[in-house]
Amino acid sequence: MLSKNQIKLISSLQKKKYRDQHQLFIAEGDKLVTDLLHSGTKAAYLIYSKDWKNQYTTAHLNSIENRIETDNSQLKKISALKNPAPVLGVFKIPSFDIDSKLVSSSLSIVLDDIQDPGNLGTIIRIADWFGIKNIFCSPNTVDLYNPKVIQATMGAISRIKLTYTPIEQLINKYKADNFPIYGTFLEGETIYQSDLQSKGFIIMGNEGKGISEDIEKYVSHKLFIPNFPIGESTSESLNVSVACSIICSEFRRREF
Amino acid sequence: MLSKNQIKLISSLQKKKYRDQHQLFIAEGDKLVTDLLHSGTKAAYLIYSKDWKNQYTTAHLNSIENRIETDNSQLKKISALKNPAPVLGVFKIPSFDIDSKLVSSSLSIVLDDIQDPGNLGTIIRIADWFGIKNIFCSPNTVDLYNPKVIQATMGAISRIKLTYTPIEQLINKYKADNFPIYGTFLEGETIYQSDLQSKGFIIMGNEGKGISEDIEKYVSHKLFIPNFPIGESTSESLNVSVACSIICSEFRRREF
Repeated sequence: MLSKNQIKLISSLQKKKYRDQHQLFIAEGDKLVTDLLHSGTKAAYLIYSKDWKNQYTTAHLNSIENRIETDNSQLKKISALKNPAPVLGVFKIPSFDIDSKLVSSSLSIVLDDIQDPGNLGTIIRIADWFGIKNIFCSPNTVDLYNPKVIQATMGAISRIKLTYTPIEQLINKYKADNFPIYGTFLEGETIYQSDLQSKGFIIMGNEGKGISEDIEKYVSHKLFIPNFPIGESTSESLNVSVACSIICSEFRRREF
Repeated sequence: MLSKNQIKLISSLQKKKYRDQHQLFIAEGDKLVTDLLHSGTKAAYLIYSKDWKNQYTTAHLNSIENRIETDNSQLKKISALKNPAPVLGVFKIPSFDIDSKLVSSSLSIVLDDIQDPGNLGTIIRIADWFGIKNIFCSPNTVDLYNPKVIQATMGAISRIKLTYTPIEQLINKYKADNFPIYGTFLEGETIYQSDLQSKGFIIMGNEGKGISEDIEKYVSHKLFIPNFPIGESTSESLNVSVACSIICSEFRRREF
């Protein structure tokens, strides 16, 4: 069973302040937790029901420092979900190096102040599907370790490297050598007819404001996802994660 | 100001039972409400702050039976949003005929038990962007008039005809004449290389279960959105609204 202090610690991790302080985050549910364990993300605590333990016994489980079997009422106390999952992991926030050779030679997604946790989680899933290994986020982007983001990634977070960094600095590091910087704008070129390379930054803007002016000036390729029929009045915009998926699909289809 | 009975009626419309009983639904926010008014959707009540009225005076406003100016505390009482909008419309659920000639000659989206209000709202926005006029939903699909769906459409609902109907019946009506029925499956043909026509049904399946077996047997074109690099282990699936956007984009790019 969990102690009062452990329950207090785990509950506090719903807030960014305490996640930063303890360098811990939580993930709930069998698939998400096992994906994180398999990817090598270090668990500080693993809390589960008896039923869950009975169906999951591997070496990964034995290597975890604090394994705590508990009952449904305690799982309910620490869960942020409507229906608590049979397992909750408290994981150490990983640190990793960026492979700048990989960044220079492949596609990365760059997020300019994305605010909605569901959008960030969905974009991580899209990156994973389309084999994009690196996501860079402006410092004002929603926190990756927000439990809503972690849940929305459906485990994709275990395969993606996501870093917070000032975007201008990032671009200045890579923009030599005509490194392409892509962004979507209403006045951009129809994406279906654009020259799309298999390397570069794909910048996705804030839900309300789009790509900020400070960043727009670095965009070398302005793209546009055309609405249909052309010229007819439709929705003013697509949701940012929807736009991101269409763009990623369009880049990858060129390689078929 | 609103009467107690009016507040009670409006609050009750958060529930499907009362929306069905009164044939009314609510929409909040300037853009959504004005889009609905402009599209000809009939408002039963329009409730707004003084500030909102001062910036919005058109013929549309004058034709509304019950216009009620109120204050922020009443707006807060009837709002389902964290931050109540300055205007809330109570609209009559519209009834309309389906133009079967249009359905036979164009693309429609068919939803097989979509459960998440955000997904349905996003799919309506995608349909609007890509000029798809008709959406058909299985009877078990989440209710269009759920306030979360209405808000997520961002006004696109005013330009789309959405109907609830048993899918088998719908397919049987149109499937003569080799009418194409598209659906995504892991064993489908790569969508980038598929023959895609400018007419047919695009079936999108339930979030957890995908397209049901009863419907799968009618699918004439099984499609697949390839992950990248091919054969590498990535996310198990894409979110249904993300998949829908990639498919719609792929159909429309053939017409450029």
